[in-house]
Amino acid sequence: MSLLVVGTTALDSIKTPHAENPRLLGGSASHAAVAASFFTKPHLIGAVGDDFPRKYINLYRKHGLNLDGLQQLSGQTFHWSGEYELNMNNRRTLDTVLGVIEDFSPTLTAAQTRLPYVLLANCVPDLQANVLDQMHRPRFVVADTMDLWLNIARAPLLKLLPRLDCLVLNDSEASQLAEEDNVVAAIPRIHKLGPRYVIVKKGEHGSILSGPKGLFIAPAYPLRKVVDPTGAGDSFIGGMMGYLASQKGSLENNLRKGIIHGSVTASFCCEDFGLKKTTKIKKKDITKRVRELTKMASW
Amino acid sequence: MSLLVVGTTALDSIKTPHAENPRLLGGSASHAAVAASFFTKPHLIGAVGDDFPRKYINLYRKHGLNLDGLQQLSGQTFHWSGEYELNMNNRRTLDTVLGVIEDFSPTLTAAQTRLPYVLLANCVPDLQANVLDQMHRPRFVVADTMDLWLNIARAPLLKLLPRLDCLVLNDSEASQLAEEDNVVAAIPRIHKLGPRYVIVKKGEHGSILSGPKGLFIAPAYPLRKVVDPTGAGDSFIGGMMGYLASQKGSLENNLRKGIIHGSVTASFCCEDFGLKKTTKIKKKDITKRVRELTKMASW
Repeated sequence: MSLLVVGTTALDSIKTPHAENPRLLGGSASHAAVAASFFTKPHLIGAVGDDFPRKYINLYRKHGLNLDGLQQLSGQTFHWSGEYELNMNNRRTLDTVLGVIEDFSPTLTAAQTRLPYVLLANCVPDLQANVLDQMHRPRFVVADTMDLWLNIARAPLLKLLPRLDCLVLNDSEASQLAEEDNVVAAIPRIHKLGPRYVIVKKGEHGSILSGPKGLFIAPAYPLRKVVDPTGAGDSFIGGMMGYLASQKGSLENNLRKGIIHGSVTASFCCEDFGLKKTTKIKKKDITKRVRELTKMASW
Repeated sequence: MSLLVVGTTALDSIKTPHAENPRLLGGSASHAAVAASFFTKPHLIGAVGDDFPRKYINLYRKHGLNLDGLQQLSGQTFHWSGEYELNMNNRRTLDTVLGVIEDFSPTLTAAQTRLPYVLLANCVPDLQANVLDQMHRPRFVVADTMDLWLNIARAPLLKLLPRLDCLVLNDSEASQLAEEDNVVAAIPRIHKLGPRYVIVKKGEHGSILSGPKGLFIAPAYPLRKVVDPTGAGDSFIGGMMGYLASQKGSLENNLRKGIIHGSVTASFCCEDFGLKKTTKIKKKDITKRVRELTKMASW
């Protein structure tokens, strides 16, 4: 069974106190689809401009992504520039150029509309809804989001929530959406907005899944050095959805393992800029860390 | 086998936006010893003044603490006043009166010096060293500490570290002690200062144990409402040490379960002011939450 991933396909320019990395491959769908590619063959839905380097298309291909849904449009590729402080938790956006993503309105092929797993990676809620409108009875629909959409597109986001199986967001976004400081108390309020499953990401502190069978408290793989956390949340959810799409049996049973696989895939993302590390690893590297993490979190 | 606990036995006045709670039973040794009492019969080493309410002595007795080492001295009981903001992570000290703790220099009985488990709960490192000097080949010595001692008593604390089996501190203190922002990278540096085991407390995010068998990533019991986190760290380590003192078999094998029992005991501490909730629960309440947490953290 396979997976559809829609979101941004971008160029990221990332500055840190030690280095400048202009025009890296980035975007929520790039990170998510590459992470998922270790487990399944994802279909990538996105748009890039004339300035999108051919080497990045080749990188997608190397990871076996189905690119039937990647449109090359006339104009600039979505470009995000950001700067990290010495403490990697503090980042600020320097510039955002929407480019071709601004008017992107994909039409899915018949084959794409029948994909059972759907990942609406972080992007404007209208685009997420547009893709979901075209899907034919998907098995499991997950959307990721961010504070930006809570601030400037709250209404379309709230309209999308009842149509999801699972919403993914980070702890501060969960508090903002539920208007409740305590994340554990925020979760039931988010369920009331629609999704049967809620996943709250807590970065280095792991994540919390809430669903019909209660809470799952998931650890993160411990890292001694974080080089660039950009895309870690996208890799997390991409790895999870790729794993789910590759497994037989009940979704409920696979979900916890899916989160662990997503979490480990995201750990590699943090170890270098952009997708540099994630595009160098093999599936066996993920499997090894999953085994280590399982040992580290058992009692 | 039993446990010696030394630390502060105090009165805490705790203010929040909603309530004032003057002269509650508090102090690191009170929280730690009561937490340990669910598993073993701890010996409490501490000093209180003439103003220490009899009802608190009765509360210690109700929990089966051995009070041979609790001195009632002429003067004031150690008194801490603090204020929490709406966000419980922000607290400030309003006033501290050292009182009788200032010149407290206990002499242990022969029986006390032979106790196998030693918990040097958070207090001035000189007092921790004084008690440890008197112990006769203890099996497992753990010390808790805080930023205050890193700031004003770094030298005696550093001198104590090689004499410990385990040091417990929170994440920001670990970073401060190791001069390393990343907690996972800070841990090996702390091992180099002496302790074979290091436990880093991360509050609602759980804790990390590091030892000869690698890392253990431990979850915290998720709480929908935190009323007062004062003493949670002391309850955590008290519950852990009480559990260890109650178990047969290799310490290495029991340590992970000890941390989980400590973590759950601390969860009760947070649910009311001071020791109000912890002194109302039974061991079966702890056992029930340990079972729930085990289910919540398995995959």
